[in-house]
Amino acid sequence: MEDKAQIQEAIKVQGEVVRKLKSEKASKEQIDEEVAKLLELKARLGGGDDGKHQFVLKTPKGTRDYNPKQMAIRERVFNTITRCFKRHGAETIDTPVFELKETLTGKYGEDSKLIYDLKDQGGELLSLRYDLTVPFARYLAMNKITNIKRYHIAKVYRRDNPAMTRGRYREFYQCDFDIAGQYDAMIPDAECLKIVHEILSELELGDFRIKVNDRRILDGMFAVCGVPDDKFRTICSTVDKLDKLPWQEVRKEMVDEKGLSEEAADQIGEYVSLHGGMDLAERLLQDPRMSQSKQACAGLSDIKLLFSYMQLFQVTDKVVFDLSLARGLDYYTGVIYEAVLTQAGVAPVALASNDAQNGSEESVSVGSVAGGGRYDGLVGMFDPKNRKVPCVGVSIGIERIFSIMEQRAEAAAEKVRTTEVQVLVASAQKNLLEERLRLVTELWNAGIKAEVMYKKNPKLLSQLQLCEEMGIPLVAILGEQELKDGVVKLRVVVSREEVATVITASGYS
Amino acid sequence: MEDKAQIQEAIKVQGEVVRKLKSEKASKEQIDEEVAKLLELKARLGGGDDGKHQFVLKTPKGTRDYNPKQMAIRERVFNTITRCFKRHGAETIDTPVFELKETLTGKYGEDSKLIYDLKDQGGELLSLRYDLTVPFARYLAMNKITNIKRYHIAKVYRRDNPAMTRGRYREFYQCDFDIAGQYDAMIPDAECLKIVHEILSELELGDFRIKVNDRRILDGMFAVCGVPDDKFRTICSTVDKLDKLPWQEVRKEMVDEKGLSEEAADQIGEYVSLHGGMDLAERLLQDPRMSQSKQACAGLSDIKLLFSYMQLFQVTDKVVFDLSLARGLDYYTGVIYEAVLTQAGVAPVALASNDAQNGSEESVSVGSVAGGGRYDGLVGMFDPKNRKVPCVGVSIGIERIFSIMEQRAEAAAEKVRTTEVQVLVASAQKNLLEERLRLVTELWNAGIKAEVMYKKNPKLLSQLQLCEEMGIPLVAILGEQELKDGVVKLRVVVSREEVATVITASGYS
Repeated sequence: MEDKAQIQEAIKVQGEVVRKLKSEKASKEQIDEEVAKLLELKARLGGGDDGKHQFVLKTPKGTRDYNPKQMAIRERVFNTITRCFKRHGAETIDTPVFELKETLTGKYGEDSKLIYDLKDQGGELLSLRYDLTVPFARYLAMNKITNIKRYHIAKVYRRDNPAMTRGRYREFYQCDFDIAGQYDAMIPDAECLKIVHEILSELELGDFRIKVNDRRILDGMFAVCGVPDDKFRTICSTVDKLDKLPWQEVRKEMVDEKGLSEEAADQIGEYVSLHGGMDLAERLLQDPRMSQSKQACAGLSDIKLLFSYMQLFQVTDKVVFDLSLARGLDYYTGVIYEAVLTQAGVAPVALASNDAQNGSEESVSVGSVAGGGRYDGLVGMFDPKNRKVPCVGVSIGIERIFSIMEQRAEAAAEKVRTTEVQVLVASAQKNLLEERLRLVTELWNAGIKAEVMYKKNPKLLSQLQLCEEMGIPLVAILGEQELKDGVVKLRVVVSREEVATVITASGYS
Repeated sequence: MEDKAQIQEAIKVQGEVVRKLKSEKASKEQIDEEVAKLLELKARLGGGDDGKHQFVLKTPKGTRDYNPKQMAIRERVFNTITRCFKRHGAETIDTPVFELKETLTGKYGEDSKLIYDLKDQGGELLSLRYDLTVPFARYLAMNKITNIKRYHIAKVYRRDNPAMTRGRYREFYQCDFDIAGQYDAMIPDAECLKIVHEILSELELGDFRIKVNDRRILDGMFAVCGVPDDKFRTICSTVDKLDKLPWQEVRKEMVDEKGLSEEAADQIGEYVSLHGGMDLAERLLQDPRMSQSKQACAGLSDIKLLFSYMQLFQVTDKVVFDLSLARGLDYYTGVIYEAVLTQAGVAPVALASNDAQNGSEESVSVGSVAGGGRYDGLVGMFDPKNRKVPCVGVSIGIERIFSIMEQRAEAAAEKVRTTEVQVLVASAQKNLLEERLRLVTELWNAGIKAEVMYKKNPKLLSQLQLCEEMGIPLVAILGEQELKDGVVKLRVVVSREEVATVITASGYS
């Protein structure tokens, strides 16, 4: 520990330095530099409870408060998404924000280092949830549920390197929809894609594409291209980079870093450049090499079936079968998909501009706004008897969507209302507080969203300003004359139109 | 560490014991006892990642999952409360689930031991939020906000002794409404009470009372009764027990444990037995002893003003000025209040019955469902210049309300719907999957909440059973004849009434 008194002395001296520079009207850089030193000293002092309020006033790294404007946008997005989930008959559940540490152990591979652990204060060892999928699987196994269609919107936690200007946080929302149960092939899978299509359309984020592939096609492809069994996963994660890197660099990583033969890499290169629709699946089923893999054939047949259902669901306009799609997560066992925004519109550019170093990378990858797939083995990992519950699901990249929406609102200088107040009860004269309170009570009791200013004698101007500021559309103005006549003046704030309205409620005569 | 192999051997043996007892049809208690031993052994083995899935399948102590039925109830309660907050013009904010540890330091007195800390994994020291009030104050100070009316519904964390059958958890919701800003006296305070009145009325929890008092009246009373200054807080927390203990026991604690003189205690006893309305405040302002305290007089005048506003707000039927109300939290500076359910109805009895030892205590205190007050100093604790932002707020005891609602739904054997699906698209014949998917797509696209079974050829009976089970009111039945005629049969599930409806959507001819 440093000596507090010493630091406090240093702060005093440094404070003098800053004051002096300011009084001498020194350059901004010079002042900023000395202020930074001062703040650094104060931070070293920390939050000692010495009555001097040396708090560092901030939220933890990688987290943020949502202010009312952000909350209004968040609510709008949540409502759209929830409405869609409910339209498809989903129930919802919630799980605790922390789980037993061992529940998360062994589920996230090397990403496990990003898990937040709680301090051992006696009792169970706990960790903050890392996603909503593992708690969901734990919930199913624990309650022996074999059938459910559920959504879950909640915060998850990762000790990742935050990039908040691009919507990447350590605390962030996930928004998951999953269908668990033994059903006829590809029907629930197709519904997940229908849901992505509906949500992205309704949110009006611009044009989008949904790429689909199948883990079995990838594995089959690796096998027929001569990738050794023990390299499937690592080669798969290299393929996963194709949305950010050109093929030559991906090939280089496969050959130079992962030790794959050039022939194998080139064969993979041919396949992963392919994309199309049901016809491509058909064609690959006839492909002399691909058709040697039973796995690949099973995946390709399912892709065909999936497309036939998607046609009925009217979503094929946005879906493309893309052999380069290889989502990272280990637990996928069948179809996988990912939605990307294709418009090089406001959002990606604006997002990337805040971070010049990674700009080129992020301006591409920012497009991904939903992803998911089939994971038939995860629930079984929690079941003592390893009973499997097939699952397919999708996760909406809600934080990215928030970022886009916020930036759009800002760019359009859109006035986001943060309350839903319909009318402000005001008065033009003094001493009418009682009458205002009586009227606002009538309005509340009638279910109308209403406010009064908490002042005995507010000025009419300041009451009207409040309406403008908060976007309150109507103002009910009380005055002596109106009270005598048993009416209120109701004014439309924007147009200044006024009507006199008779008050029929009990409190008036 | 224990020897895994040893424990595994013990589990095997114990498993045999259980199997034997079961085959011998031993008594339930005997079997349960041996099963408990078996589970205990399995727990000791822990979640070793040995591919044998030795997970303990549970949520952390003091926490729970919400299943779809509980979520449906939770949503209903949240909607009622949120509607009320919005009717009163509140905005909403959200803060991270964890704060810098130092933000929480020194805010909760000896309850600080109940704070969950995160493990130091490098970087900042963090703790889970303990309530929503301190993060709110931090938010105001950090953003230099001096005026806001906001609500915040979110989970908070306390390493308390859980009593889950009574709705007391380590992870639980708080539901806060606060008004920050410098306003004319008692107007926002009265609105908080109006809000409590509206919410408790709308939730139909049974009859209730809202007790009000003022921290300044308590302090003034202690002063004129001769309580030494340094004993105010501790005597106050003894008075706080009056809703659970008879006066004689409270007096005993004051005198025997806290060392108060008998005279002082008796004088306090006279005052804290008083309750009434505005008239009581008036009377106490004339009281020769009480009127000696400036503080008490200020509090009493404000209580009078509060009652006059509450009359205008039409809530005085439920409010009582009660000098025994002494809410524990240190940060209150003015008016305080607490709402209790007064009906000895289903809820308190049922809640208490799960815990015989504390039954008598809990059957009284379970009634408290909302509380709050004025805290004008808290924000200043975060401001480097100690600028004060006066605040008044209320917290709705939402977990207790959930418990009551859940038990009521259970007692009434009420069928709680967990989805909002309006219609199931079904078929009576085989090979109509395509037609079902086409029709459900039309419904979804039209914004109708609809489902199909994920089977190629489900039986009509099982489709109808699904409707009954999930409470789906309508079933649209497709058959060869209907398709030829361009209609669907729409059946009301409960009454079995049927009508033929023409399909006008594009996909049909």
